[in-house]
Amino acid sequence: MKCGLRMRAILMAQILTLPVPGGRCSLVIVSCTVTLINFSSGRYEPTWESIDSRPLPEWFDQAKFGIFIHWGVFSVPSFGSEWFWFYWQKQKLKAYVDFMQKNYPPDFKYQDFAPQFTAEFFDAKEWTDIFAASGAKYIVLTTKHHEGFTLWGSKNSWNWNAVDVGPKRDLVDEVASAVRAQGGIRLGLYHSLFEWFNPLFEQDAANLFSTNYFPTTKTLPELYELVLKYKPEVLWSDGDGNAPDKYWNSTGFLAWLYNDSPVRDTVVTNDRWGYGSIGKHGGYYTCCDRYWPGHLVKHKWENCMTIDQKSWGYRRNASLSDYLTIEKLVATLVETVSCGGNLLMNVGPTHDGRIAPIFEERLRQMGQWLKVNGGAIYNTTAWRSQKDNVTNNVWYTSKPQEKAIFAILLEWPDNGSVILNEPVVTKGQTQVELLGHGALQWEPAKPRGLRVLLPQLSFKQMPCQWAWTLKLTGAS
Amino acid sequence: MKCGLRMRAILMAQILTLPVPGGRCSLVIVSCTVTLINFSSGRYEPTWESIDSRPLPEWFDQAKFGIFIHWGVFSVPSFGSEWFWFYWQKQKLKAYVDFMQKNYPPDFKYQDFAPQFTAEFFDAKEWTDIFAASGAKYIVLTTKHHEGFTLWGSKNSWNWNAVDVGPKRDLVDEVASAVRAQGGIRLGLYHSLFEWFNPLFEQDAANLFSTNYFPTTKTLPELYELVLKYKPEVLWSDGDGNAPDKYWNSTGFLAWLYNDSPVRDTVVTNDRWGYGSIGKHGGYYTCCDRYWPGHLVKHKWENCMTIDQKSWGYRRNASLSDYLTIEKLVATLVETVSCGGNLLMNVGPTHDGRIAPIFEERLRQMGQWLKVNGGAIYNTTAWRSQKDNVTNNVWYTSKPQEKAIFAILLEWPDNGSVILNEPVVTKGQTQVELLGHGALQWEPAKPRGLRVLLPQLSFKQMPCQWAWTLKLTGAS
Amino acid sequence: MKCGLRMRAILMAQILTLPVPGGRCSLVIVSCTVTLINFSSGRYEPTWESIDSRPLPEWFDQAKFGIFIHWGVFSVPSFGSEWFWFYWQKQKLKAYVDFMQKNYPPDFKYQDFAPQFTAEFFDAKEWTDIFAASGAKYIVLTTKHHEGFTLWGSKNSWNWNAVDVGPKRDLVDEVASAVRAQGGIRLGLYHSLFEWFNPLFEQDAANLFSTNYFPTTKTLPELYELVLKYKPEVLWSDGDGNAPDKYWNSTGFLAWLYNDSPVRDTVVTNDRWGYGSIGKHGGYYTCCDRYWPGHLVKHKWENCMTIDQKSWGYRRNASLSDYLTIEKLVATLVETVSCGGNLLMNVGPTHDGRIAPIFEERLRQMGQWLKVNGGAIYNTTAWRSQKDNVTNNVWYTSKPQEKAIFAILLEWPDNGSVILNEPVVTKGQTQVELLGHGALQWEPAKPRGLRVLLPQLSFKQMPCQWAWTLKLTGAS
Amino acid sequence: MKCGLRMRAILMAQILTLPVPGGRCSLVIVSCTVTLINFSSGRYEPTWESIDSRPLPEWFDQAKFGIFIHWGVFSVPSFGSEWFWFYWQKQKLKAYVDFMQKNYPPDFKYQDFAPQFTAEFFDAKEWTDIFAASGAKYIVLTTKHHEGFTLWGSKNSWNWNAVDVGPKRDLVDEVASAVRAQGGIRLGLYHSLFEWFNPLFEQDAANLFSTNYFPTTKTLPELYELVLKYKPEVLWSDGDGNAPDKYWNSTGFLAWLYNDSPVRDTVVTNDRWGYGSIGKHGGYYTCCDRYWPGHLVKHKWENCMTIDQKSWGYRRNASLSDYLTIEKLVATLVETVSCGGNLLMNVGPTHDGRIAPIFEERLRQMGQWLKVNGGAIYNTTAWRSQKDNVTNNVWYTSKPQEKAIFAILLEWPDNGSVILNEPVVTKGQTQVELLGHGALQWEPAKPRGLRVLLPQLSFKQMPCQWAWTLKLTGAS
Repeated sequence: MKCGLRMRAILMAQILTLPVPGGRCSLVIVSCTVTLINFSSGRYEPTWESIDSRPLPEWFDQAKFGIFIHWGVFSVPSFGSEWFWFYWQKQKLKAYVDFMQKNYPPDFKYQDFAPQFTAEFFDAKEWTDIFAASGAKYIVLTTKHHEGFTLWGSKNSWNWNAVDVGPKRDLVDEVASAVRAQGGIRLGLYHSLFEWFNPLFEQDAANLFSTNYFPTTKTLPELYELVLKYKPEVLWSDGDGNAPDKYWNSTGFLAWLYNDSPVRDTVVTNDRWGYGSIGKHGGYYTCCDRYWPGHLVKHKWENCMTIDQKSWGYRRNASLSDYLTIEKLVATLVETVSCGGNLLMNVGPTHDGRIAPIFEERLRQMGQWLKVNGGAIYNTTAWRSQKDNVTNNVWYTSKPQEKAIFAILLEWPDNGSVILNEPVVTKGQTQVELLGHGALQWEPAKPRGLRVLLPQLSFKQMPCQWAWTLKLTGAS
Repeated sequence: MKCGLRMRAILMAQILTLPVPGGRCSLVIVSCTVTLINFSSGRYEPTWESIDSRPLPEWFDQAKFGIFIHWGVFSVPSFGSEWFWFYWQKQKLKAYVDFMQKNYPPDFKYQDFAPQFTAEFFDAKEWTDIFAASGAKYIVLTTKHHEGFTLWGSKNSWNWNAVDVGPKRDLVDEVASAVRAQGGIRLGLYHSLFEWFNPLFEQDAANLFSTNYFPTTKTLPELYELVLKYKPEVLWSDGDGNAPDKYWNSTGFLAWLYNDSPVRDTVVTNDRWGYGSIGKHGGYYTCCDRYWPGHLVKHKWENCMTIDQKSWGYRRNASLSDYLTIEKLVATLVETVSCGGNLLMNVGPTHDGRIAPIFEERLRQMGQWLKVNGGAIYNTTAWRSQKDNVTNNVWYTSKPQEKAIFAILLEWPDNGSVILNEPVVTKGQTQVELLGHGALQWEPAKPRGLRVLLPQLSFKQMPCQWAWTLKLTGAS
Repeated sequence: MKCGLRMRAILMAQILTLPVPGGRCSLVIVSCTVTLINFSSGRYEPTWESIDSRPLPEWFDQAKFGIFIHWGVFSVPSFGSEWFWFYWQKQKLKAYVDFMQKNYPPDFKYQDFAPQFTAEFFDAKEWTDIFAASGAKYIVLTTKHHEGFTLWGSKNSWNWNAVDVGPKRDLVDEVASAVRAQGGIRLGLYHSLFEWFNPLFEQDAANLFSTNYFPTTKTLPELYELVLKYKPEVLWSDGDGNAPDKYWNSTGFLAWLYNDSPVRDTVVTNDRWGYGSIGKHGGYYTCCDRYWPGHLVKHKWENCMTIDQKSWGYRRNASLSDYLTIEKLVATLVETVSCGGNLLMNVGPTHDGRIAPIFEERLRQMGQWLKVNGGAIYNTTAWRSQKDNVTNNVWYTSKPQEKAIFAILLEWPDNGSVILNEPVVTKGQTQVELLGHGALQWEPAKPRGLRVLLPQLSFKQMPCQWAWTLKLTGAS
Repeated sequence: MKCGLRMRAILMAQILTLPVPGGRCSLVIVSCTVTLINFSSGRYEPTWESIDSRPLPEWFDQAKFGIFIHWGVFSVPSFGSEWFWFYWQKQKLKAYVDFMQKNYPPDFKYQDFAPQFTAEFFDAKEWTDIFAASGAKYIVLTTKHHEGFTLWGSKNSWNWNAVDVGPKRDLVDEVASAVRAQGGIRLGLYHSLFEWFNPLFEQDAANLFSTNYFPTTKTLPELYELVLKYKPEVLWSDGDGNAPDKYWNSTGFLAWLYNDSPVRDTVVTNDRWGYGSIGKHGGYYTCCDRYWPGHLVKHKWENCMTIDQKSWGYRRNASLSDYLTIEKLVATLVETVSCGGNLLMNVGPTHDGRIAPIFEERLRQMGQWLKVNGGAIYNTTAWRSQKDNVTNNVWYTSKPQEKAIFAILLEWPDNGSVILNEPVVTKGQTQVELLGHGALQWEPAKPRGLRVLLPQLSFKQMPCQWAWTLKLTGAS
């Protein structure tokens, strides 16, 4: 502390009043955290005003497409939902209670699943090969879900982490290393602030969050460790447990993340940092799960959704009809990007470490589509109009830097042509290209826009399936 | 036995010479089986000549497409192959030995997998829904693979069957009942004659099959029980263990099956009934696994093959590229039926009783294709020519009863027409129809055959994907 | 069979009438066993008359004291009784049903205990050290109890034996080898004829034992194998399942055992060979468990009883008060031998292969006592009187060959002397000795017998505890 | 804090210097604990001087005999020692490494034992019945051994405690309640300060105990909770981990315990409160395990020792010879009490919650002895001489309040009398009594002391076994 700089002190105090017989005021223990920050111009302060003023690092808006990975002890029962523990023990939903009664000993607890989280087939290289083939530019891995089990060997989560029990491996490290070795994909880490059943959180909650045993001994040390050890470029926060950001010291942490962490220049965070912060504060907006506004949203946002419509974690009881088709997935990507969002598409690996072939198929199909149509997705900007108001299922993106507009057709027209009503075209100047095929003829449409004449292509000659892109240059 | 009929006696004797000290010939135990058969004209005798003379029940040739299901204790490790036990313990293949050393206690034995064969998600109704949707007309379930574990509660396999350990359910009964309730699908049961590690079989083998402790106490009682209890219409025999049919008393059993069993009128069997019988005796021919001759075979045959190219049992370590694509599966069906065969396409359920979504997807896709093209598959007969010798990837089937020839195109031509060189056509009489679409124009081709003009169809307008059928009437 | 001897044939036939639709009498299978016996003078015939005529090999009556060992899958739950399976599943006794419901998954079956029969601490050498220290002259090991699980790798009990599952060791072989290496102890093997839940036995029972699938494929092959492989000198049969000896072919087997088996000269059997045979036929009598007639029984008999009063198998829920004290055990030995019996004292090893210290303590204490008093036990003969009719708790044995009478005092008299009313003594000829101490004074008693004057010994000077032997010579 | 009292503040600070890239001194987090103590006359201060000045509550010296109970996850392998984890993983002792390799999967960790800590036979009432029968006046239960697993549901030990995993019961509560219901026995709780493998402790140790993450978040909250919740009257501290008492804040905690805790009037502690405190500070001295000085020690001390000579935790691989005999145990009690100590005799319950019969036997035997001889043990004071210097194996205790001296004979003399050289006797005044029997004759011995004439008692007439007490009154 001999650095002789101007300091700013933040004090967080905990007072433990021990229940002393007779009610005498004889003993008080105060535990406090003093944060001394080197204050200088150009640094973020631990206020939302300051935090929210940080510009979003450019790479994120350019990336457009990421993969979400929900993996944890919930992957062992792999029944119903990654909220298995909560639905079973807190809500006592019948399906979960019955499942346990039918298949497990009477006193089996959720913790007893942990040793069966074996991950013996987990090969991070295989995963990243699939991720790369999917065209995703970033991934987000659940390092700790609401169950509190950490996928790395957190010393603040002794005997409830993947190194001490279950896999006995640092899963976060393996994924992080493989992602870096792969190249072209950025690492994101999901982290839940609260934990459903952590007794220290329960104690704080019972104290109406006037104490903060839990964040000071669990959440915050782990957040710091995650950032310092794995250097994520997305920090995907979740699970405020209805506690305010003050309780979590979110702004204090984010100020450090943006000022002093090793990823301060490129890291991106979301908006789940405390009760009331969603859609208001932090980094990009996630709002609710599977958020899709349907119109342009100015603040950068992300649509996190699942291939298995009913769960984020792997479910053994998912049938084919629960998995979204590739047609629907491509449409979701297109509609999301058109409206200014990124798509974060979730897969749930199995307890033994595999990405099931049905997920692999969807991801590789998405990659096939992006190989042809990636020009209309990556590095694009929402256009002035999101979808055509004459022809259904046509969505727009744009690349101002290339003066290009992209019209993405979710259906191939039966009649051999398509009308685009939104673009303003100029004869002799406007050019239209079908991505993966080549230049197309067009003619002006009435009262405005253009009619693009599509080629007659046999099934084999089509440049791709599921959606097709018309690239317009010389239009506006 | 007071029935006063002419009888025919078959005697099978076992002699056990106990090793008596001093080598005296003092004790001999003879165990024998006397089979008394009611002999009358029109009955099959226990000789290959008689057995092989039985005509194949018609339904089987008409069915064309069945689903093979490999399920057993091997579904628990679900690693490598359903031959896991053999590869690990007998052949000591490195991959299997390593897998066990890495993941299990030192003295873990294959038998210890049985309690983990849980089948908690098994719902026979869900299975048969998928089977029905696939267009299959029969299924064949492994009631007992070479591991000897019976999926029903065989009393000759005490404590090594699915009722005593593992699922604790009669899986054969559940499948059989659901198949019957479904309707439209016939039940087939797979049964392995030998068992890799059964000590009684090993003893007989050491005696060069001069004793038959094993067939008399295990194989034959179980075969009788299977037929009497579940009444299968396909009895898919396998695994002769290099022992001759005499050892197995195959002709004796088949004579009973064809003469007196409850399924004697409709049951179909294959050709795996003893060393040397394959491709020669029994019912239809299977020859080797994944048999596909490439030309017409007169004796009815079946191509049994797997969607997962590398295994019949479920493999957790299968990646997407190991699963055949739907294009390849449809092609295999077409090519098999053209050459006079049936296709028996295999899926491997998981230890907990699920048909993985990737399998479900392939099966349902096959059903979509058959919905449009089933007319060219079911109830058809091999035509005089199997494939076109001018245009590649065109295969023929026929329906003499409708005077129809079917040309199935595995590729959609780029140039808008296709030449069929084989059919003999007559102007004004020959008509061509694209199944799922309607009548097409055609013109005679030189020097013979015809050129069919294909319609310009957008992606959405195509009647189906993967392969397309031209139905010709008035041609020959 | 070219041995040219006179033969005697015994035929046992099984008729299987298959349920044929329509009730036609069209198929009958007869399985039969023909036993051809070399008949010559001096050999035992398979009749009770002949079998029962065999003299008991001398060693058994001389041995007096053996150890019974109940070990099996029941040692895994080790709750209640070695009849766990039966009480739980057949009788549905509340304590057992509750125990399972409270501690195991809903569909847990008895068979699921087998993998937990680990025997990792089993060291046969440690066992035989203890047996030798106990003074026992033979042991009897349960090679197969009514559960049917064989402690050796029986090929007629595939996957339900200690080599295939659980210990994965041939426990019978290890015990047999250690006993032989130890020397001085003879090997006995317990074997249950019937098995509670074996479906083949159940089938025979349902047929009122008119069929014998079970004995021919399980019981008899295993009995022969046991004898040929392990050469036991006691074959302790049990569990007739209410089936007659004809069903079990007991006389046939015993004739072989006595005529031709490798142990024909020394082997001893008991009387449990079929419904009604107990106390009548076979070798020595066991009558009921814990049989103790209280008076002299001429036919050799054995009192098999347990240290844990409530169970033969190890019970975790046994408290100290359930274990008989050494005082009671010594008294039982004395009283049994006095009445002409042998004592077979049972211990139940744990699932992991240990003889619990409380059992070890009792056995070693017995050995300490026998070291001093063995002269009054081993090689003795029941005397004309079993117990003194004047002084309580005094029991007699004798050694005619040494002209010695032994009076064993279960209590040490408070008054310094003891009256023995039964012996006829002669002044100047009769001598009295306290075993472990030396000669004692005595005086004639009125009207008959003698009064022995006991020495004043401090605790440390006593030759032994629990019971004391007065050896009389020159008396009758 | 408005209580207006004079306060004394103790501050303990933690400084976390985060590794910041570039080495800039920009962020420092200080976590501190401020203890404000109401200081008033008559209260203990958090200094050793003050703490050590507290008189030992009288009950403890009067109790003399307690039972130690080592129970925890180590009771699952129950092999070798309760230091299993340490010997296996840190010291890598061959016996432990081999045991694991032979019996468990390759990646099995100590944590995987926890689910097998089932305690299904644990009945605290049964335990306390045995404890009461043993004559013990207090018990000490390991609430948390060095493994860190808490036998109660500590919220600072989430998922590593007996409520969350394993027994799923609050074992401390069950024992505490049963002890209280029993009456006559006081509750003691053992607690280890450090934990071998707790990563927070390891971190502090790596920081040479300049940080104290571990005591503030684990040790101290748990100590407070233990005292407040279970109100133990012995707090048996252990395991300083080579860290000084300052690190543990031992004096701070003890001041609270002695001043303000609910057991401040009766609680007793030992001397294991930090590196260097053993035999110097705290409550009574334990010095090393199995401490027995052999001479009078003025400061109250306790001899904690084990019935199984080689382990505190239950060992399945213990043979009878490893268990001390009752003779040796009685002798140890006598010798310990003579020299001013208490005896704390250890038993190790099994993983399923039983006190093995061999332990039960020893405990009940001790109780039988104490029933007769308790007058020479309970409430006694060390006499001026500890053992007789003429006759071997005679130990003295005294009761000044009754003017009685007790001479305890570990051997019963062969010659009918015993010389006691130490007591000063007076003819006509000194009286001698054999406890359990009655008054004895004596005569003066030369040059001093007395010769006591022992009665001639038959085995049955002896008042007790193993040791005998002569009570002298009117002597000095």
